[in-house]
Amino acid sequence: MASINKYLSAEEAAKIDQELMSEEGAYTLDQLMELAGLACAQTLAKAFPKDEYGKVLVITGPGNQGGDGLVAARHLKMFGYEPTVYQVAEPKKEIYTRLTRQCRNMDVPIVNTVEEFKEVYERSSVVMDTIFGFSFHPPVRPPYHTILNHLASPETENSSQKRLPILSIDIPSGWDVDSGRQPLKDTNGDEVETFEPEVLLSLTAPKEGVRGFRGRHWLGGRFIPMKVQEKYKMQLPPYPGTDQIVELEAKL
Amino acid sequence: MASINKYLSAEEAAKIDQELMSEEGAYTLDQLMELAGLACAQTLAKAFPKDEYGKVLVITGPGNQGGDGLVAARHLKMFGYEPTVYQVAEPKKEIYTRLTRQCRNMDVPIVNTVEEFKEVYERSSVVMDTIFGFSFHPPVRPPYHTILNHLASPETENSSQKRLPILSIDIPSGWDVDSGRQPLKDTNGDEVETFEPEVLLSLTAPKEGVRGFRGRHWLGGRFIPMKVQEKYKMQLPPYPGTDQIVELEAKL
Repeated sequence: MASINKYLSAEEAAKIDQELMSEEGAYTLDQLMELAGLACAQTLAKAFPKDEYGKVLVITGPGNQGGDGLVAARHLKMFGYEPTVYQVAEPKKEIYTRLTRQCRNMDVPIVNTVEEFKEVYERSSVVMDTIFGFSFHPPVRPPYHTILNHLASPETENSSQKRLPILSIDIPSGWDVDSGRQPLKDTNGDEVETFEPEVLLSLTAPKEGVRGFRGRHWLGGRFIPMKVQEKYKMQLPPYPGTDQIVELEAKL
Repeated sequence: MASINKYLSAEEAAKIDQELMSEEGAYTLDQLMELAGLACAQTLAKAFPKDEYGKVLVITGPGNQGGDGLVAARHLKMFGYEPTVYQVAEPKKEIYTRLTRQCRNMDVPIVNTVEEFKEVYERSSVVMDTIFGFSFHPPVRPPYHTILNHLASPETENSSQKRLPILSIDIPSGWDVDSGRQPLKDTNGDEVETFEPEVLLSLTAPKEGVRGFRGRHWLGGRFIPMKVQEKYKMQLPPYPGTDQIVELEAKL
């Protein structure tokens, strides 16, 4: 397992994304999202084997991380999982419309209401949290406050149901990208519960806010040119074989 | 290893591509090329281990398969190989300009002349043939006749040099997509040599022309919706784990 010595601020993460998709960086969002989503799906497959965790609830938020989630759901289906997508908001950008259609073409169910989300939660075995990424700023708007509260402490008719294990991407949804797990409020000023996921996938490099994260931690984003790595003083570990992800050493 | 019972005609292969990228299929060329190129790189890595075959000469032709080759070269670099791209024609379409720049950003050398190609050939250990895909029609135009002849029977100053092993994609360049290895002529009416590659990667499903192929054979294209598989009566084998490729049974 590899170690890491660089954490990115929210500002740095946004800048790197811009550079990768600049005229010089030459990547398109389609390409990077495809590789990021594949890394998400591969991490879920490594951390949560199909036989035990076949039913995956993928929750997609309003930004690019939601797109990663849609790509991941499609790949998970190809890997033999049974993903269901809870798409919290109807996508407006053309790319999300296309990614949503690709999921439907793969017979991946997509639900859109909080009620359906709670139903799917009860019959799922693991959650992929692609709700908020490194552009997140509090407070939390509805219905996201309900979702985060439910992920932290599910209220179900089945009182024996435990909280499902969670794979988060870049930053656990609700955590501050720079300062980590902090008290969180919704737009009404009410407290929102946060959660610590069992597994984290950091894309490009871990964000400042996850320095305190103690679960299993993977790194993905095997597409960063050396020049960009050097500019941001990232010493990224080697990836094994042809994998798109590498597991990082657990913290003690 | 998996077996296959469906071979696609050139016409069917073109139709499937169109359907995948139609409004209903909803894929973009960027997405499919990224996944196809990754499958090419993974196949090379499985068939030609890095320690023995580190120096890869990727030859990119005028069509979409050339784009797959550019994507593959970038991923190979990330896998620790030392790829060099021989880009036979300067790309005009915007996507190839971007993919070329992505290679340059990864410090993948790109050469453009037949002379450079022959030089690079002498110090390479394996060739990735992304010259012609399933849209190929004879006769062969210059300088492609020289390239195919060289790949079949290299003329080098080092008389002990053997022909380098070759990974071809979909159809060995120069073979007829529907009828396989046939006598081939260039635009002057002169005979062009063809070759049988050591390894083949078929994307989506094997093409009619490779029914007689006897080398190691992989299948890639883990993104075909079940509806499309059924429409074209493709019974595709299961892929292992999170791989983008699966090896097919060798023919006896």
